[in-house]
Amino acid sequence: MARVGNLYGPDFTYLGIPGADLEEPASFTGAGAAILGAPFDGGTSHRSGAKLGPQAIRLGDYNPQDGKRPHMALGVDGLLDTGVVDLGDLEIGSGDTAATLSTLRAAVETVASAGVVPIILGGDHTIAAADIPAVASTLAPGRLAVIHFDAHADTGDDHFGSPFGHGTPMRRVLEEGVVRPERFFQIGLRGYWPEPATLSWMADQGMRCYEMTEITARGLATVLSEVIGLVGSDCDGFFLSFDIDAVDPAFAPGTGTPEPGGLSSNEALGAVRRLCMELDLKGMDLVEVAPAYDHGEITAYLANRLILEALCGMAWRRARNLGDTVRNPAAPLLDGR
Amino acid sequence: MARVGNLYGPDFTYLGIPGADLEEPASFTGAGAAILGAPFDGGTSHRSGAKLGPQAIRLGDYNPQDGKRPHMALGVDGLLDTGVVDLGDLEIGSGDTAATLSTLRAAVETVASAGVVPIILGGDHTIAAADIPAVASTLAPGRLAVIHFDAHADTGDDHFGSPFGHGTPMRRVLEEGVVRPERFFQIGLRGYWPEPATLSWMADQGMRCYEMTEITARGLATVLSEVIGLVGSDCDGFFLSFDIDAVDPAFAPGTGTPEPGGLSSNEALGAVRRLCMELDLKGMDLVEVAPAYDHGEITAYLANRLILEALCGMAWRRARNLGDTVRNPAAPLLDGR
Amino acid sequence: MARVGNLYGPDFTYLGIPGADLEEPASFTGAGAAILGAPFDGGTSHRSGAKLGPQAIRLGDYNPQDGKRPHMALGVDGLLDTGVVDLGDLEIGSGDTAATLSTLRAAVETVASAGVVPIILGGDHTIAAADIPAVASTLAPGRLAVIHFDAHADTGDDHFGSPFGHGTPMRRVLEEGVVRPERFFQIGLRGYWPEPATLSWMADQGMRCYEMTEITARGLATVLSEVIGLVGSDCDGFFLSFDIDAVDPAFAPGTGTPEPGGLSSNEALGAVRRLCMELDLKGMDLVEVAPAYDHGEITAYLANRLILEALCGMAWRRARNLGDTVRNPAAPLLDGR
Amino acid sequence: MARVGNLYGPDFTYLGIPGADLEEPASFTGAGAAILGAPFDGGTSHRSGAKLGPQAIRLGDYNPQDGKRPHMALGVDGLLDTGVVDLGDLEIGSGDTAATLSTLRAAVETVASAGVVPIILGGDHTIAAADIPAVASTLAPGRLAVIHFDAHADTGDDHFGSPFGHGTPMRRVLEEGVVRPERFFQIGLRGYWPEPATLSWMADQGMRCYEMTEITARGLATVLSEVIGLVGSDCDGFFLSFDIDAVDPAFAPGTGTPEPGGLSSNEALGAVRRLCMELDLKGMDLVEVAPAYDHGEITAYLANRLILEALCGMAWRRARNLGDTVRNPAAPLLDGR
Amino acid sequence: MARVGNLYGPDFTYLGIPGADLEEPASFTGAGAAILGAPFDGGTSHRSGAKLGPQAIRLGDYNPQDGKRPHMALGVDGLLDTGVVDLGDLEIGSGDTAATLSTLRAAVETVASAGVVPIILGGDHTIAAADIPAVASTLAPGRLAVIHFDAHADTGDDHFGSPFGHGTPMRRVLEEGVVRPERFFQIGLRGYWPEPATLSWMADQGMRCYEMTEITARGLATVLSEVIGLVGSDCDGFFLSFDIDAVDPAFAPGTGTPEPGGLSSNEALGAVRRLCMELDLKGMDLVEVAPAYDHGEITAYLANRLILEALCGMAWRRARNLGDTVRNPAAPLLDGR
Amino acid sequence: MARVGNLYGPDFTYLGIPGADLEEPASFTGAGAAILGAPFDGGTSHRSGAKLGPQAIRLGDYNPQDGKRPHMALGVDGLLDTGVVDLGDLEIGSGDTAATLSTLRAAVETVASAGVVPIILGGDHTIAAADIPAVASTLAPGRLAVIHFDAHADTGDDHFGSPFGHGTPMRRVLEEGVVRPERFFQIGLRGYWPEPATLSWMADQGMRCYEMTEITARGLATVLSEVIGLVGSDCDGFFLSFDIDAVDPAFAPGTGTPEPGGLSSNEALGAVRRLCMELDLKGMDLVEVAPAYDHGEITAYLANRLILEALCGMAWRRARNLGDTVRNPAAPLLDGR
Repeated sequence: MARVGNLYGPDFTYLGIPGADLEEPASFTGAGAAILGAPFDGGTSHRSGAKLGPQAIRLGDYNPQDGKRPHMALGVDGLLDTGVVDLGDLEIGSGDTAATLSTLRAAVETVASAGVVPIILGGDHTIAAADIPAVASTLAPGRLAVIHFDAHADTGDDHFGSPFGHGTPMRRVLEEGVVRPERFFQIGLRGYWPEPATLSWMADQGMRCYEMTEITARGLATVLSEVIGLVGSDCDGFFLSFDIDAVDPAFAPGTGTPEPGGLSSNEALGAVRRLCMELDLKGMDLVEVAPAYDHGEITAYLANRLILEALCGMAWRRARNLGDTVRNPAAPLLDGR
Repeated sequence: MARVGNLYGPDFTYLGIPGADLEEPASFTGAGAAILGAPFDGGTSHRSGAKLGPQAIRLGDYNPQDGKRPHMALGVDGLLDTGVVDLGDLEIGSGDTAATLSTLRAAVETVASAGVVPIILGGDHTIAAADIPAVASTLAPGRLAVIHFDAHADTGDDHFGSPFGHGTPMRRVLEEGVVRPERFFQIGLRGYWPEPATLSWMADQGMRCYEMTEITARGLATVLSEVIGLVGSDCDGFFLSFDIDAVDPAFAPGTGTPEPGGLSSNEALGAVRRLCMELDLKGMDLVEVAPAYDHGEITAYLANRLILEALCGMAWRRARNLGDTVRNPAAPLLDGR
Repeated sequence: MARVGNLYGPDFTYLGIPGADLEEPASFTGAGAAILGAPFDGGTSHRSGAKLGPQAIRLGDYNPQDGKRPHMALGVDGLLDTGVVDLGDLEIGSGDTAATLSTLRAAVETVASAGVVPIILGGDHTIAAADIPAVASTLAPGRLAVIHFDAHADTGDDHFGSPFGHGTPMRRVLEEGVVRPERFFQIGLRGYWPEPATLSWMADQGMRCYEMTEITARGLATVLSEVIGLVGSDCDGFFLSFDIDAVDPAFAPGTGTPEPGGLSSNEALGAVRRLCMELDLKGMDLVEVAPAYDHGEITAYLANRLILEALCGMAWRRARNLGDTVRNPAAPLLDGR
Repeated sequence: MARVGNLYGPDFTYLGIPGADLEEPASFTGAGAAILGAPFDGGTSHRSGAKLGPQAIRLGDYNPQDGKRPHMALGVDGLLDTGVVDLGDLEIGSGDTAATLSTLRAAVETVASAGVVPIILGGDHTIAAADIPAVASTLAPGRLAVIHFDAHADTGDDHFGSPFGHGTPMRRVLEEGVVRPERFFQIGLRGYWPEPATLSWMADQGMRCYEMTEITARGLATVLSEVIGLVGSDCDGFFLSFDIDAVDPAFAPGTGTPEPGGLSSNEALGAVRRLCMELDLKGMDLVEVAPAYDHGEITAYLANRLILEALCGMAWRRARNLGDTVRNPAAPLLDGR
Repeated sequence: MARVGNLYGPDFTYLGIPGADLEEPASFTGAGAAILGAPFDGGTSHRSGAKLGPQAIRLGDYNPQDGKRPHMALGVDGLLDTGVVDLGDLEIGSGDTAATLSTLRAAVETVASAGVVPIILGGDHTIAAADIPAVASTLAPGRLAVIHFDAHADTGDDHFGSPFGHGTPMRRVLEEGVVRPERFFQIGLRGYWPEPATLSWMADQGMRCYEMTEITARGLATVLSEVIGLVGSDCDGFFLSFDIDAVDPAFAPGTGTPEPGGLSSNEALGAVRRLCMELDLKGMDLVEVAPAYDHGEITAYLANRLILEALCGMAWRRARNLGDTVRNPAAPLLDGR
Repeated sequence: MARVGNLYGPDFTYLGIPGADLEEPASFTGAGAAILGAPFDGGTSHRSGAKLGPQAIRLGDYNPQDGKRPHMALGVDGLLDTGVVDLGDLEIGSGDTAATLSTLRAAVETVASAGVVPIILGGDHTIAAADIPAVASTLAPGRLAVIHFDAHADTGDDHFGSPFGHGTPMRRVLEEGVVRPERFFQIGLRGYWPEPATLSWMADQGMRCYEMTEITARGLATVLSEVIGLVGSDCDGFFLSFDIDAVDPAFAPGTGTPEPGGLSSNEALGAVRRLCMELDLKGMDLVEVAPAYDHGEITAYLANRLILEALCGMAWRRARNLGDTVRNPAAPLLDGR
């Protein structure tokens, strides 16, 4: 009896990769990356449901769960070539945010300090207040860039009287001082929040924010080149914090605070891939997938692939750095000769 | 109490009744009852979404929002005859349970101590750990019965390491000692939880639990008569804690932990009405309505009516106690003559 | 009658029965019954969508559209044995109610005066103001009973300033004087409408209304026996006006003004069947199916079968009256010998 | 104007702006704009449901309903800076189109003649036959341009025998002669309707219609520039009639007659914003939002923002005209320094 | 890191029971029962989707996936006390029915001949043509009764020219002669299929079929007692073939050919439990769960519990037969003393 | 061809075009094209449901089913000008793939050999193994190009042990040798399948595959020009095999194996139109529409229009070839003069 998919008897790790256990370091030491679920949505301000994000992202696929994913355009296997493992989900409730952040931070530090790239499946964006600092703590001060895709800046100061919520994590991260604001890039912002006072605070820090109007006018490729240039110049790598609502609700309805006017799925997938091909990914979170508002699983599938594109980009970069011949993804796949 | 969204206290009251403000006692003093929303779902163990319950319950109606609801079968008006007001929603987050319970407890005490029957719209069942004691505190010790409709006993001892969650409130209530266990009635239990150790604890307390098999065998009417007899003998009134999952998922799919095999909507509506006709309602919560899992708004409509049947029952009881002529709801509505 | 869409009269007949054309009397003369769609929802007070009811009811089946439906329990074929035809849908808009009612009334009179039982697929309940009088006009005065299944009495006097809307048709029918109020039976009423003044008007007329509390207390079978006795004594037959919201929203979510606490599908199907077995059906409408609020097509399937049970009951009654041996549906289908 | 339900004018205003009452001119005099709901769908030819559009548009947001919306890219507040109020919904039925149009026309004239920009939330597009002439009547003849976003020309001559329906309003408007056909611009047309005879009539009038193939070939920005040039040259302002089905069904599934191949949400939002920044908005309707066909509320959110972008564009234009420093929305939001 | 549910890192067997492998007999030998998925829907005649049934049934739960399920009313643990294992799914396509049936039959024989009760998760009902004979082959001729819950008799002779499809399996089973027709019980039949010729064939065989009208008239408890008496008298045990469409669509919308008028979830759960308490279950299939038509997972949850009630009934029967004290499920769960 | 249901050939033709019967050649001889439904989904590897694709595609429209579709931008009528007829659906099961392919192949050959362009409504993509060779057999060897839009190459070698399934048809087609691999174009590929061995096989054949990264980089228009040039040079015409999952899931969620990052609806519609304007369409299939996963019918509508754009392109090409004046679709529809 085979194990060929979420249909035919999977063991239910992400795409069938090997399982691992946070309490048994040997199970993940030496892995290229490690998936970790953070089923928490106590920090949402409106529609909740991101707690079931990790489950949906793991289920969001129609191919065999065989631990292989050969990328047609890149010519690498995002799973086999990176050696990624799945640590399962943290056992955390949603009603005690401080405890949850503490648990998550310790877990991510454990993974990252073992030289393994942590990939956290949210959960709402509150968790970035823990996972970004945890990764930053394993690098020299100021050497971790953050590239943050989101419709919202998440730099608010207060969440119903608490410092922690899904609208505040980036402020907490910057306040910690573990990331340089001028190497904190926000891509995809739009809409009517935050208010001017918070924007002023952000400006005072020196953040670089790409609102959708600028992105539309200049083109996403130009924006990415600019970011890549800045990160490449004086950072050791980057943390990718991807809020699924950076993508337009048409492509990602399954989220809590959808804001029309966002990226297409093709743009998002290509951006994540390119960043991970050209820069050194040190950690990642993929947050705010709320399956209750999804339909036809399209948001879950997109989130599943955003993780996979990151892994494939990592694999391609590693192969290139080793001097292997690598494919140019824009070259003809098969040229008819 | 702020007015910060369609979630937190818009001027859209339950069925168009007068609005009131918790911070202005004059706005609710003298009211017969007061609606209060508790948009919290940080205590859910599986599917979240009950945070949007208050909004859905208020929206769950097709009739004019004119503050009137003449009950055909009872011949009273559940709104006009009780003088119920709507306090809006508490402005609470879902990520700090202890703070939320404290805020809710104070609010309910304020209402109940003013002689107004508080009716809390959840939110998940965690909130019962605050609202039942708050009401009990306004009566003489041991004089408040609790009638608890639910598929689950909610007497667990732990929620991801915290004492508070939607599986533990009734244990907390009993531990406080403000309600006598032998006057704590559970109706609608079924399934595979809790485990024997918790059942033993419950038995040691002396609770009375009606599992669905007993209810099916004896009939719900018989069970209710038994409960009414016991409450009527030595209590001053009762708190009605109604978890929507007491009702079968066919009638109430919009909830977090649906358990097949429950009550029908007709049974639930009739039970709530009868209890409020025959006993003195001192407080009520209606919890675990999670609109994201609803369809065609049928759960929201049912929850809206469960509140309304309670109010109509109260109005009928009051009229009868005043010596007014009251209708027997089972008598022909119009007899064709 | 035009053929202009999947909405207005495609050659997709109810269960594959022969098509007919209202403008060609020969196409339906001699038929036992005739289906006629009235895709109108301009009279709804809340959620619209009943306009697509006829299409959904015709599509609501998984069996071959072969024009045959042998009823297991009754031993007759509801289609072949009645000789029912499908006239398609009236080509009517929803924005001019008076014109629509006039068109419908003429159509139903044409059918009924040809000795064919008209079965109208709504559309919202506004149409009853036309179809009931149209059928009544073909009988001697006062000889048509009306049996009206509904959560609502539909005896209001005004619809946004107009006499016509889905809350007023029964008042219009009674005002015409074509039906005796004491032979106008309402079954399934519940909730908080109409207000006392309208109930008084109804009482003054002498209507007989069975609210759900009475039905629950006495049993539906008892209620039906009472109605059958009264109709059988001094009427020539009955019009069955079935609002799908008589059924509980769990069984029929696809409707505009769902009211919890209604009949089960099993009760509804059995009631329609029994009435048509024991009394002479002269006309029928099945209204308020709004597919946009349905899920899994369950409301459409139920509506499809309610029509079919009426036809099967008619066929059984006809066979019995002809002296044929007929099955007792409650007898064992196959007795194992 | 009554307050009779969650549909008809609850005290739940658009984004928390101040409420106003059409019968109390002082409540809106001096406002920059006024929201007015027209819950009518009696003119739909296929899927109905637009009647609940106003409710869905008002509910379509996750931010606090605090009456503030600072636009990040424009640096203005679309609510505070315009002084917009909400008049609630007209209390209109859907079954008497002529009466409804008369009521609406009077209401819009009242608003517009007070110097307040009316913004009508539909409802189906039938209403444009009333609201465009009402606004035109407050300007000198021929000085109002119409910019009409839609998949359909809406210039049919007949709706089931009536002059009014959602496929005919623009013909009625042009027949009135209150708008010059060469200043009536249609953007987003596509598909297989209307037939050649109607296109000829339109050509004879001298309308300017941008079908999607032309828009795709030339680019939306070029098209908008052309329109802006023409309107700016000899009109005093424009009426924006936005049918949500101008947008592709992927971004706006919640509508009655979706036609694939339309604009993206980003294009639509940007177009509305730019038009209101560069031209003087005199009136607007946003029509054909049918929530029953929406999912995850994405259509409702988009509609909510289309209104908001119009208001923000107005605010920016006003600020610029006053000589205030205004932001170029395509400039970097925060430039990292 | 714990394994506490489908949310927190399950290993994804049914409710967390131990996994086993059909190719390694030691992995299931000695188990009391074994779950086996048959993801096949090539035999459906209308809506497909049952292929994803096994996945949905395994996911259909909110409790920890900890391999324990203490049954409150029975006082046994359906998982621990039976020692049930999960064999995963057969790797079968849906396009070659004959091959699939052959694979399934061999698998079930392997399990049953090892003395393990096979419990097959369908998949459509076609599979009964393989799994019933496979179990029958392990008993003496004629000693296996079949109790078949279904809206449909499934005794057709042809499926699009093939002998195999979801409308024909019971004919194939009876033709094999491995089950005595007079010990083949059908419960829940209703509707308009099969046609008289097939009913005659069934009568000629001597089957015992309980149509819903008989069940409603006599009561399900009476019917079950009759069946239990007949099976108990001269069979060694029974195969339970449960088509989810025996249950009314309100409780189980997620299926391919829903037929209104069926059992409630409470009736279905109670019936399965009682049969397994009073008779010896030799094998079971649970078929026709089609998740694409489900909502809020209510069908999946019900199917999950139907399996569990069978296991709990088995455990209770085993305990009683061993002389252990067992609970009467209808006795008070806790009696308040 | 039987008429056995709403699934199998009701008299509800595509957009109201004339019906025809495969068994009566006179009914389609002389037609320009013929629609043929293939309701089969036995070859799906994950989510099934494509069996109901033909019904959904025929229902997927809001305009009158009057057999006319004047294309605004092209100035031709895709139905009247081509003379297309509807043959209904093949009466085929999903459980015997070999038999189904044989039936389909014969049917398509019958149509194509009569000089009629067959347009097959799937069903899953398995059917391409029959319909492409059937069309190729009517042309000289190697003179039929294939243009295949898909997210997946469908060149696998095995489907659960069978040669036929929806992942293998193109391999079967190429193995037959009826199409030259260098004139087999794949457009829209993306993701992580097939594995390198299959890609090598494809490369060995000499196929030309456009992965989405290349398409994004070069632009779809450029890619299409390249394909058109190659096909035009040495083929007589082309078969268009369009898998709806070539389109992004946002625009086409109703499918079995959605892969994010695909074409927009506007791109897809334009591509199909342009290909049929510039090349000679010899046959077409439109596959993998699975309505159970659709929402708001948006996928069904898109599929309906993809067929229609092909027909309109054909009509435009025919008119141009006859020397008629034809419209440039990118020219202004109405130019305001």
